[in-house]
Amino acid sequence: MKIKFNDNFDKIPQNYLFSEIARRVDEQKRKNPSKKIISLGIGDVTRPLPKCVSSAMSRAAAQMSTREGFRGYGDTRGLPELLNSVAEYYKKRGVLLSPDEFFISDGAKSDLGNLCDLFDDNEIVICDPVYPVYLDSNLMSNRKIRFLSANRSNNFLPSPQNLPKKPFVIYLCSPNNPTGAVFSRENLQDFVDFALESGSLVIFDAAYESFISDNTLPHSIFEIDGARECAIEVCSFSKMAGFTGVRCGWTAIPHSSPLNKLWCRRQATKFNGASYISQIGALAALSPEGLTENAKNIAYYMENARILADFLTKKGIFYCGGVHAPYLWIEIPHAQSSWDFFDFLLTKTGVIGTPGAGFGRCGEGHFRLSSFADRTDVFEAVERLNDLFNSYKEKNCHFFEKK
Amino acid sequence: MKIKFNDNFDKIPQNYLFSEIARRVDEQKRKNPSKKIISLGIGDVTRPLPKCVSSAMSRAAAQMSTREGFRGYGDTRGLPELLNSVAEYYKKRGVLLSPDEFFISDGAKSDLGNLCDLFDDNEIVICDPVYPVYLDSNLMSNRKIRFLSANRSNNFLPSPQNLPKKPFVIYLCSPNNPTGAVFSRENLQDFVDFALESGSLVIFDAAYESFISDNTLPHSIFEIDGARECAIEVCSFSKMAGFTGVRCGWTAIPHSSPLNKLWCRRQATKFNGASYISQIGALAALSPEGLTENAKNIAYYMENARILADFLTKKGIFYCGGVHAPYLWIEIPHAQSSWDFFDFLLTKTGVIGTPGAGFGRCGEGHFRLSSFADRTDVFEAVERLNDLFNSYKEKNCHFFEKK
Repeated sequence: MKIKFNDNFDKIPQNYLFSEIARRVDEQKRKNPSKKIISLGIGDVTRPLPKCVSSAMSRAAAQMSTREGFRGYGDTRGLPELLNSVAEYYKKRGVLLSPDEFFISDGAKSDLGNLCDLFDDNEIVICDPVYPVYLDSNLMSNRKIRFLSANRSNNFLPSPQNLPKKPFVIYLCSPNNPTGAVFSRENLQDFVDFALESGSLVIFDAAYESFISDNTLPHSIFEIDGARECAIEVCSFSKMAGFTGVRCGWTAIPHSSPLNKLWCRRQATKFNGASYISQIGALAALSPEGLTENAKNIAYYMENARILADFLTKKGIFYCGGVHAPYLWIEIPHAQSSWDFFDFLLTKTGVIGTPGAGFGRCGEGHFRLSSFADRTDVFEAVERLNDLFNSYKEKNCHFFEKK
Repeated sequence: MKIKFNDNFDKIPQNYLFSEIARRVDEQKRKNPSKKIISLGIGDVTRPLPKCVSSAMSRAAAQMSTREGFRGYGDTRGLPELLNSVAEYYKKRGVLLSPDEFFISDGAKSDLGNLCDLFDDNEIVICDPVYPVYLDSNLMSNRKIRFLSANRSNNFLPSPQNLPKKPFVIYLCSPNNPTGAVFSRENLQDFVDFALESGSLVIFDAAYESFISDNTLPHSIFEIDGARECAIEVCSFSKMAGFTGVRCGWTAIPHSSPLNKLWCRRQATKFNGASYISQIGALAALSPEGLTENAKNIAYYMENARILADFLTKKGIFYCGGVHAPYLWIEIPHAQSSWDFFDFLLTKTGVIGTPGAGFGRCGEGHFRLSSFADRTDVFEAVERLNDLFNSYKEKNCHFFEKK
């Protein structure tokens, strides 16, 4: 073929981060099939869905074989009842957005990637470390990227204070993937104020908002004054309601933004809606019973996080996160590289985490542990890590402590 | 906001074709709420799903509440069992593609739109009239478009013979939406030969392949010699299995094409798979029972098409399609414009079709009728059209006949 391919793909790693992890894990499984692998790697939920959610989907699926229950193409913005429920979900936290300021999607990843279609060549601001989708999808579009470093000195919460006053597209994720750090109201107000002054847009990824347990911390960018004029928000049922396999999410774009019409046009052309059955499941996930059950699952994961955090604290290993987020971001200053550490941990213990380098330059020297796992696996992972830690401690050659 | 938006959106109509139709229909419903609307407009299936499909999805949904049955993120390419089944589906027609030459999607529209991400500024070749997604998504990417006219003189089957020998991205849809015309093996061989000689890529949309009843007509571009070296294929469960609301489709990209890796990387970054439940439904749709039931539904729609075709023939109205495709493409030479005719028909009879102009310049003077409808509605539509036809015939002022 002599047609021209998008050679910006050369700028991104050959494999998507979690595809590369899956590849290495498969290799290890082939080499050592008897060793049980414990995954604290990819942020994939493990708890079964609440009964009320699976029952609603089961009924919806069955009804698709009836004349009355059959559903074809849905509205571009999504199922009207679900749009209402999402608006109600925001209203409970004092955020007033109307149903037609939301768009139901098949998940946050799709929307975060596809939003690039709406923009010309703005400069992009991304925190480092970062969920790779913001970076990779913008590199595919040949965008110039500016990084805001998140590190121990700023409590993994960068600010816009050193940015020049020019219009950027700024991606923020809070609670953060991968660091688990959470922006305060004041932190987000700084970004909103900067965006308003500079003509920037904030794309706020709220996928982990339901893990926040401190009521003074913002769940949504729209809790911040002025955000309606400069921000949009992407969110998902994946982590909040265990929908990583079901696929449903949403994006909130205020009417006042020209992006509301542009996104509607984009989605009408290149998307045909989330599955009706998934949308019915999402509706059930936002019902009072669904919300209660989801909260129980989140509490379960956060207890996992506490167990991991306790171990790290006991061993004097520095970490961030694990309080309002399912992720613990640990320092591994003695490791050659975070990918080496990944391979080392996988080979020695069968425990999978995510190498920090997969999240950007500032991620090097770090490692992400996810608390999405069965409790027994978390206990076993801690035991295995403890054994490893002790054996290396004895040899005065361990990865975790400061040089 | 001072950030730069993608101003290529100005090049496409403000509303997506079927969104505009929905808007006009809603307006008519408000004006005349008692008049029953009969939709032969948007190509949305109406038959309930086969029981084996809905039962499989219902079970999968219920199992998501169990420890063993719960599923999170799936493989980037899709559910392995489904990839195998799709490969088997092709094998039955003699097309040998391996499971990892397929990618499961949430529908053909998403893939057809998102494929644009893989290319640089190649010139695009599109038939006119055309499914608006090929055109709109390429205009959003600022591509130069060259049209191949499909009209009565070439039996609505354009050929590549007048194209200069340079590399193009060529979109083909057969059976065609909107004209219902079907390419023969020879027609497609011409395109494949041209693509091989010129270094072009053919993107083949096979969404309506299951409506073909003549075994000598090709269902897949990969039935054509040389296609593996120059073509990819997008297909969907939407029309074949009634999945417009369930959302599942696939794209076939041979290993030998560099696009296989590029698409895998694109999908890993900007997509997280079709719903697990939908994929289980798709698997059931490809089972022997599913295929038998789907064939019955397709036969039902094709009987609708025959009824519409009989009426048109009786009245001497020229049309194309309706034999191997659910669409009838009729001539309306006396109408001011196809949108005028749409409004006229909606107001006078409550019957909705799709104005040809919505499919491109060559679509003007034409009107698409869809056979996706209940039988009783088809009979009533024919009756209403007949009354209208007779009343205008008497006044010597009708839309359908040649001037």
